[in-house]
Amino acid sequence: MITIVAKSIVKEGKLETFKALAQEMVEKSRKEKGCITYQLYQDIHNDHVMTFIEEWEDMESVEAHQKTEHFEKNVPKMKALRHPSSEMTLYKKYI
Amino acid sequence: MITIVAKSIVKEGKLETFKALAQEMVEKSRKEKGCITYQLYQDIHNDHVMTFIEEWEDMESVEAHQKTEHFEKNVPKMKALRHPSSEMTLYKKYI
Repeated sequence: MITIVAKSIVKEGKLETFKALAQEMVEKSRKEKGCITYQLYQDIHNDHVMTFIEEWEDMESVEAHQKTEHFEKNVPKMKALRHPSSEMTLYKKYI
Repeated sequence: MITIVAKSIVKEGKLETFKALAQEMVEKSRKEKGCITYQLYQDIHNDHVMTFIEEWEDMESVEAHQKTEHFEKNVPKMKALRHPSSEMTLYKKYI
């Protein structure tokens, strides 16, 4: 299993646009083959920090996800709305 | 529910010591009141990046956790083994 943590620090004034794109990502990604969970969180101290936590069956599922129409359409738009310090990390479970 | 993502970038040569402390944190924290899940992950591209993802019933549970003997004993030791760029974020679920 692969767990992805993708943290976005959304630019001022862009939060509502970001949320709409993110919501579409959540709805469509949850229906994909190999998607176990796909959740979106908001920092309790800073509304502009929004983080996806995703669980995928394997790397093949992650790679297929990154080639979907909704990923190719929405992710570049979301990148333009967030600060460069945003980050994505792929994890394996340790314990 | 509160979700915590705590990412540690462990210093060179300190990984085994960090893992032992982290393992004790996992085992003891999972037994605490209000702990829903408490998992430890490792970056698939960098063994020295280790991240806890924790789910707690509420802020009271988180605050009680931070006052436990194992937290007060292990967390300062773990802080000394990681780079200052390590970070902890508390989240509420958005969707």
